[in-house]
Amino acid sequence: MEKQDLLRKPIEHIDIKTFDARPIIEGYALMAFQARNLATAAEIYNGMLADHDCKIILTLAGSLFSAGLKHVVTDMINRNMVDVIVSTGAIIVDQDFFEALGFRHYMGSAFADDTALRELAIDRIYDTYIDEDELRVCDMTIAQIADTLPPRPHSSREFIHAMGAYLDREGLKAERSAIHSAYKKGVPVFVPAFSDCSAGFGLVYHQWHKKDGHLTIDSVRDFRELTEIKLAVKDTGVIMVGGGVPKNFTQDVVVATDILGEEKPMHKYAIQLTVADERDGGLSGSTLKEACSWGKVDLKYEQMVFGEATLTFPLLVSDAYHRGAWKKRAPGNLSNLFMK
Amino acid sequence: MEKQDLLRKPIEHIDIKTFDARPIIEGYALMAFQARNLATAAEIYNGMLADHDCKIILTLAGSLFSAGLKHVVTDMINRNMVDVIVSTGAIIVDQDFFEALGFRHYMGSAFADDTALRELAIDRIYDTYIDEDELRVCDMTIAQIADTLPPRPHSSREFIHAMGAYLDREGLKAERSAIHSAYKKGVPVFVPAFSDCSAGFGLVYHQWHKKDGHLTIDSVRDFRELTEIKLAVKDTGVIMVGGGVPKNFTQDVVVATDILGEEKPMHKYAIQLTVADERDGGLSGSTLKEACSWGKVDLKYEQMVFGEATLTFPLLVSDAYHRGAWKKRAPGNLSNLFMK
Amino acid sequence: MEKQDLLRKPIEHIDIKTFDARPIIEGYALMAFQARNLATAAEIYNGMLADHDCKIILTLAGSLFSAGLKHVVTDMINRNMVDVIVSTGAIIVDQDFFEALGFRHYMGSAFADDTALRELAIDRIYDTYIDEDELRVCDMTIAQIADTLPPRPHSSREFIHAMGAYLDREGLKAERSAIHSAYKKGVPVFVPAFSDCSAGFGLVYHQWHKKDGHLTIDSVRDFRELTEIKLAVKDTGVIMVGGGVPKNFTQDVVVATDILGEEKPMHKYAIQLTVADERDGGLSGSTLKEACSWGKVDLKYEQMVFGEATLTFPLLVSDAYHRGAWKKRAPGNLSNLFMK
Amino acid sequence: MEKQDLLRKPIEHIDIKTFDARPIIEGYALMAFQARNLATAAEIYNGMLADHDCKIILTLAGSLFSAGLKHVVTDMINRNMVDVIVSTGAIIVDQDFFEALGFRHYMGSAFADDTALRELAIDRIYDTYIDEDELRVCDMTIAQIADTLPPRPHSSREFIHAMGAYLDREGLKAERSAIHSAYKKGVPVFVPAFSDCSAGFGLVYHQWHKKDGHLTIDSVRDFRELTEIKLAVKDTGVIMVGGGVPKNFTQDVVVATDILGEEKPMHKYAIQLTVADERDGGLSGSTLKEACSWGKVDLKYEQMVFGEATLTFPLLVSDAYHRGAWKKRAPGNLSNLFMK
Repeated sequence: MEKQDLLRKPIEHIDIKTFDARPIIEGYALMAFQARNLATAAEIYNGMLADHDCKIILTLAGSLFSAGLKHVVTDMINRNMVDVIVSTGAIIVDQDFFEALGFRHYMGSAFADDTALRELAIDRIYDTYIDEDELRVCDMTIAQIADTLPPRPHSSREFIHAMGAYLDREGLKAERSAIHSAYKKGVPVFVPAFSDCSAGFGLVYHQWHKKDGHLTIDSVRDFRELTEIKLAVKDTGVIMVGGGVPKNFTQDVVVATDILGEEKPMHKYAIQLTVADERDGGLSGSTLKEACSWGKVDLKYEQMVFGEATLTFPLLVSDAYHRGAWKKRAPGNLSNLFMK
Repeated sequence: MEKQDLLRKPIEHIDIKTFDARPIIEGYALMAFQARNLATAAEIYNGMLADHDCKIILTLAGSLFSAGLKHVVTDMINRNMVDVIVSTGAIIVDQDFFEALGFRHYMGSAFADDTALRELAIDRIYDTYIDEDELRVCDMTIAQIADTLPPRPHSSREFIHAMGAYLDREGLKAERSAIHSAYKKGVPVFVPAFSDCSAGFGLVYHQWHKKDGHLTIDSVRDFRELTEIKLAVKDTGVIMVGGGVPKNFTQDVVVATDILGEEKPMHKYAIQLTVADERDGGLSGSTLKEACSWGKVDLKYEQMVFGEATLTFPLLVSDAYHRGAWKKRAPGNLSNLFMK
Repeated sequence: MEKQDLLRKPIEHIDIKTFDARPIIEGYALMAFQARNLATAAEIYNGMLADHDCKIILTLAGSLFSAGLKHVVTDMINRNMVDVIVSTGAIIVDQDFFEALGFRHYMGSAFADDTALRELAIDRIYDTYIDEDELRVCDMTIAQIADTLPPRPHSSREFIHAMGAYLDREGLKAERSAIHSAYKKGVPVFVPAFSDCSAGFGLVYHQWHKKDGHLTIDSVRDFRELTEIKLAVKDTGVIMVGGGVPKNFTQDVVVATDILGEEKPMHKYAIQLTVADERDGGLSGSTLKEACSWGKVDLKYEQMVFGEATLTFPLLVSDAYHRGAWKKRAPGNLSNLFMK
Repeated sequence: MEKQDLLRKPIEHIDIKTFDARPIIEGYALMAFQARNLATAAEIYNGMLADHDCKIILTLAGSLFSAGLKHVVTDMINRNMVDVIVSTGAIIVDQDFFEALGFRHYMGSAFADDTALRELAIDRIYDTYIDEDELRVCDMTIAQIADTLPPRPHSSREFIHAMGAYLDREGLKAERSAIHSAYKKGVPVFVPAFSDCSAGFGLVYHQWHKKDGHLTIDSVRDFRELTEIKLAVKDTGVIMVGGGVPKNFTQDVVVATDILGEEKPMHKYAIQLTVADERDGGLSGSTLKEACSWGKVDLKYEQMVFGEATLTFPLLVSDAYHRGAWKKRAPGNLSNLFMK
């Protein structure tokens, strides 16, 4: 088997505008179990969009963009359906930026021979393949961008903003990019564990080769900046796709405002799409009710949906897109907070 | 809280004809993870429907009808999209027959106080409520039907056929019933563990009060009858919603033909929608690949979809409904095999 | 690869007497999550054993005996640590009776090539292999036993009792057998879906070749007999390993007594070891709190433990074995109820 | 209910020296499913300990220390059974450092009323309670430590080393602390998402109040330092408890060495204890076979164990402790790499 035989069928991103999920969600609303939970989550999201005092934070974890969900997020950005993004590095760098450089993800098999893949330099994510040589280009592009930035601490948001500027300057080689859309629309993007991805490779390379005079990524600054956003806005709603650090980080910001001596409300709305389980005490599966005990999430509008994101997230956003509450919603322009 | 306050919002069954899942499934087909698996499953189902040598067996487990999936199944029956049903007793008796008698399931909360519910005689299935007094009526109706039948061994199929006749005679008190539709369309319905539900209560009552001269339910006969169907048809495809006894029973029938000295092919097509996991060795989550080692399922057209049925089953059937391969498909009339 | 190369390392059953789980359970009791849940379950089991008004029902589902848990159950039977067993057919027939005939289960791989296994007539259960030719001998032995029994309806309990008598007469070809131990100790064993296993193959063969004059398996009678046990004893405790039909059937028996007009208490104690999840509304993962709403399980002494049975069941029983409450416990001899 | 009534029964850490898991693991080794997987994992861990060219990296995610697993890790550190730790911040700061300051975690209920808990300032982790006021003390102690450090970028390792020095100076107020043990034994501890925990609160406070002249946490430096360790040693083995960023970060380090132009082998040994699932494509549940396609993990000695860590981790380490391969193993002293 040659490498190009295995990298033949690219993943295509689903377009939530090409189908109308409203009748499905309306049907689900009168059923039980996760269908009803998804309908409740959709209702809460529509509530967030209609509440003009509320800024919307989207948290992303899991291999979402390699799985074809990138355009769901770019549609949200472009239509003022989200104001802040908090993500894992894999989604933003290895997947979004990677595709923006002209590379693709490919349909593969979950039952592949991984030793054979390794010899071909093909990386596997469950049933998806990536050309490792192309990933190396992505890593090195990060290093190049780092080389152009001042040698001081940066937040991940700041660095990702620079990645957006790079794409704007060099030209997108993909149909769309969340980094680029967010750059244009003023949506700040945070990656609290920024080294834990392709960016880490590029930045280690940068620091290694610039022993003196390299930039650093200050994760405290990320937290501080997200806290500043929480302080600057009236209410917040959170849409969590998967759990992990983005979920925890975003919930913690409520406590952070308290620690700084400011009185800010809990997240007023919260929904999570996840397959994780609460019974091992892990954070990813911890319920939003549990988060309430920590003073992070209000219980009035919260819903967990137990299901894999490729099945649930497109329906959620298609429903909100077609209901159209976003049409009356102003852009958040929260990136402006950091442009001084 | 009064009982009627908790039993106010009835579950409504989703109608897969009111939305067109085709563009969603087409989008899913080019993605990854469970979305792509669902699209592959849909493709296999459409293949089954177009293969006129293939009879389709639907297995059902989990609280599917109380959750609003009843009309998905009646639509399949009425449009020649399924030829045999193998189910748990709860779905067929406690839920389908129960609603056919005019009762409903109600939206409730997964976080209810179960002691309080018990005092009100409200039974809970996750987030759904049932009036226990109404369930008792269902049990007793089973006992009445049993009283009218000859005191000899019956298969569950035979008894369920009598339930269909009862509904036909007495009049349906619900919009639709899978038992009744199957009765009219000649679709045999098997419940291999027939005592393990409301039917068990009614039949124990029947046997208890008719110490001599009661009927019995011969589960061997169920297995024999399903084997006779396998012997009578050319090819078979299986759609499994959940796992449990219906899954195992239906897969085993291939081995049974072998034991009777007949040469019949494995199930040619097989799809399963499930949340169960293979890693504990349990049958419900065992993969269709594993079933192949047993000589039960062919590996050419098989797909597991990991997701909760309320989210996946309506999309699967809506897609097949709108593609319309069923329009050229003749009724299976497999009940006729047992009408001599 | 030859067949004998793959069937080389037999599964050995763990002996809970060879290690003392008490200090582990004592440690777990002061922790959190599933360790603490297991310790609570152990405490409840010890409570059942010390409560001499309580008869103990053990329900079994999942491939437990092929996985090496058979001797855990035979130790429970032989030491008066269980009074009734309700199981899937696979465990009792394909696994216990199969081994009693001198056959073994073998260590295999969960990543095997199932097509290759099928060609060698090796059946796979996750990471375990079975010689299909030996399974056929098991099926046919069931047919032979059926041929010797009177041509009338039998409960599964009655048939399994005859299997015990067969083993007693012919001689055990394994170190131990749950069927045989139960036969000797008067512990009734129910398999509510008795056709759904190797027994089904043998019994279909029996019925097929004895068109007139064959026995039948009346699953209603199983339910009636288990109800008679519930009526005959003061209190009951239930230990559920896995879910499925055995769990549901055993919980339903409380309702059955009510339907027969008798006033009997709910199951006083209930523990379940499972990996199933409640969030799809399925019965296997439904919580014992939910069962309380149905009037089946008391909430005072109930505990779910989320973990795979090979990891949790040996610790639970080893703890109870070494604490020794069973030493003062009389045999239940509940089989006597049906010996008239 | 008063606050002190809910915070009465502290979690106690299990001591793996007080019981001998060897006979259990030996029994598990001849069984199937997760018991056998755990025995295989134990065999691999014993192999790592006996391989004196191999340094052992332990990754920790999930609420492990609040659940009573802290002493398992301190025993590993003190007996040269681990050379590097990569963890979430919650475990190291909110749980280990928190207890080192004299605070405790308490047994609670997973079914608590979270609104009531919030009013009492009690935070819940599944079935465990924490006094939020005590957590605030922990946050502020972090801020104090930060105030004493030079205003420049630090790796999390460096900061955690300073926390160890603080505890050494001020005196431990708990029986043991992983931070302190690691400090004394020269075991570097990395927290790649250091702001995502109590440390984040303290450090945001520090930066907020020292607008100029505050320290930063450079997550790139963490990655660089872990890469330096990989470069400095011959072989590596990884024990992963849970998944998340610590798992990904540690696996990525192999790729990082490659990017720096150095030829280093993949992780030679790898085991993971997890409840996560691979079927959603998430990293936490991704198999070690998948990691091989990325060139991160060798396939010769790898094992996933599907089970909750409180049930599996104590058995794994107790087995290795009693087998005693650690007695011939020298301390790694890898902290020395960074002491210049």
